[in-house]
Amino acid sequence: MTEKLSIGIDCGCTNIKGGIVDRDGRVIARSSLEIAGATEALDVVTLVARLMRELAGSRPLADFSIGCGFPGIVDHERGRVLSSPNFPKWRDVPIRDLLAEIIQLSPAIDNDANLHAIGEQRFGAGQGRKNLVFLTLGTGIGGGIIIDGELFRGDSGFAGEIGHMIIEEGGELCGCGRRGCFERYGASHAFELFIRRMDLKERTAYLAKAGSSIEGVTPAIVARLADSGCEQSLKMWKEFGRNLGRGIAMVMNVLGIESFVIGGGIARSFDLFAPAVRIEIQNGTYKENAERIQFLPAVLGEDAGIIGAAVIGHK
Amino acid sequence: MTEKLSIGIDCGCTNIKGGIVDRDGRVIARSSLEIAGATEALDVVTLVARLMRELAGSRPLADFSIGCGFPGIVDHERGRVLSSPNFPKWRDVPIRDLLAEIIQLSPAIDNDANLHAIGEQRFGAGQGRKNLVFLTLGTGIGGGIIIDGELFRGDSGFAGEIGHMIIEEGGELCGCGRRGCFERYGASHAFELFIRRMDLKERTAYLAKAGSSIEGVTPAIVARLADSGCEQSLKMWKEFGRNLGRGIAMVMNVLGIESFVIGGGIARSFDLFAPAVRIEIQNGTYKENAERIQFLPAVLGEDAGIIGAAVIGHK
Repeated sequence: MTEKLSIGIDCGCTNIKGGIVDRDGRVIARSSLEIAGATEALDVVTLVARLMRELAGSRPLADFSIGCGFPGIVDHERGRVLSSPNFPKWRDVPIRDLLAEIIQLSPAIDNDANLHAIGEQRFGAGQGRKNLVFLTLGTGIGGGIIIDGELFRGDSGFAGEIGHMIIEEGGELCGCGRRGCFERYGASHAFELFIRRMDLKERTAYLAKAGSSIEGVTPAIVARLADSGCEQSLKMWKEFGRNLGRGIAMVMNVLGIESFVIGGGIARSFDLFAPAVRIEIQNGTYKENAERIQFLPAVLGEDAGIIGAAVIGHK
Repeated sequence: MTEKLSIGIDCGCTNIKGGIVDRDGRVIARSSLEIAGATEALDVVTLVARLMRELAGSRPLADFSIGCGFPGIVDHERGRVLSSPNFPKWRDVPIRDLLAEIIQLSPAIDNDANLHAIGEQRFGAGQGRKNLVFLTLGTGIGGGIIIDGELFRGDSGFAGEIGHMIIEEGGELCGCGRRGCFERYGASHAFELFIRRMDLKERTAYLAKAGSSIEGVTPAIVARLADSGCEQSLKMWKEFGRNLGRGIAMVMNVLGIESFVIGGGIARSFDLFAPAVRIEIQNGTYKENAERIQFLPAVLGEDAGIIGAAVIGHK
């Protein structure tokens, strides 16, 4: 049997990343394209196909197995994107068929967080663990659940919507239209919330230090200030970790899965929030459980999406 | 191949129920024994073995496949009960080996809520559904998760501890020692909480109507009063349903499983709380999800534990 190479594509909201990946999860070639304002599914899919051809070079695409990740709620079985926060016009779009018309091949598609999860489980922080929960922390919280080495998608592809567990009734308004969702407290918007809760004097001083408006304070800014010893910033990361830990403990109680891998931009500050997460896991689960939980940072970075896409392509 | 019959045992805190179950999930003989104060594992196991022999009658036990359910945290793989709220002395007890010494056979063992789940999924309310969450509502909330037709036990047998998700930080004290666990709001203790929250006048009038102290007000009493049109009781069931629905929506967001089956004593009042649960599921999950959720009462009643035990025995 020849070791067929795979092309993995990770379609985000501003750009499309792709790579050629071997059976050992190594990315042996990379490329990317800017989406540059395209919003129609056909336009985005055309860009995806262009990137695939660029990666394949002089070889025909049929020489590769191909997988693609898209943001949003993806029906893996039917190859459709049901909805996508990044592409609001997309409603039950037959992405796989659109792609197949252009490239004459039918790639596997899935949700991007799911692909990060499978990438990290096979070749990253979760190697060797058969069950794993992956959380990607950015403007929201994406989730991917691996059971027995395979992605668990639930009955209709909705598994892993962990960011939309309501953890505070009547709490902060979420992009999904509901209030109190986990991702308002354990992703980037949490910092805006923490700053709004400061008293006026404290807030003014903090924003001066950050050199930003409330809305402009990114986790990266809070991390930079924390690294330079800013007490308020350290406190915010602790609060962030507590919130994240509460949600993780809930998921642990439901699933009894002991490996949690954290990816996404905010994972770069893992050491700033991990201690508080671990304490909250202790508080929120049985002692026997808490002792076994592995709470780990992702290790593949942005490659996880490409590698995960390659893995589902291989099938 | 002969259709081997199975003996299923459901060991509770006050009595042990058993039955002979055929391959179609029919209980063709039944018996039970009172535990009558036995607390040592060896004494309970001896009673379990006696019930098995009684069920087998003149046939040798080896003619049957055998499964047993025990309350508490059970390590199915190793055949041990790690801890049990009903038998506080039990700490990592090798139940399967103790049984094997008496009956010279090694039965399958599992947690009782898991066995109710598998019973209902194979032969009850969940027939034909490959994924299912079963919740048993009594003094606590037990949970069993079925994925792809099999019990999902998590990494160490702790999956389904849904009753101990903390849904209200700093909330009601739970038997597990933590505060705000789901089972304080969505199982029998919830009614005590609702009554304590009434103002003194309202509470006094209610307890007079119930003919009971606060601690003595059971879900059955509240159901009887609700059925006779008592506004306060109807309101309590609605509040109960809201709490239950919040927790179910959380689990739905994590797992994307669309079938929820409710068993346990409180399920007898299903019609009193189900409407509020359904509204809360709508509020707490994506619209696309909420439309698909099947929220159903268990149909096997107390037999579910025996039938589920028989199913794991068959393996």
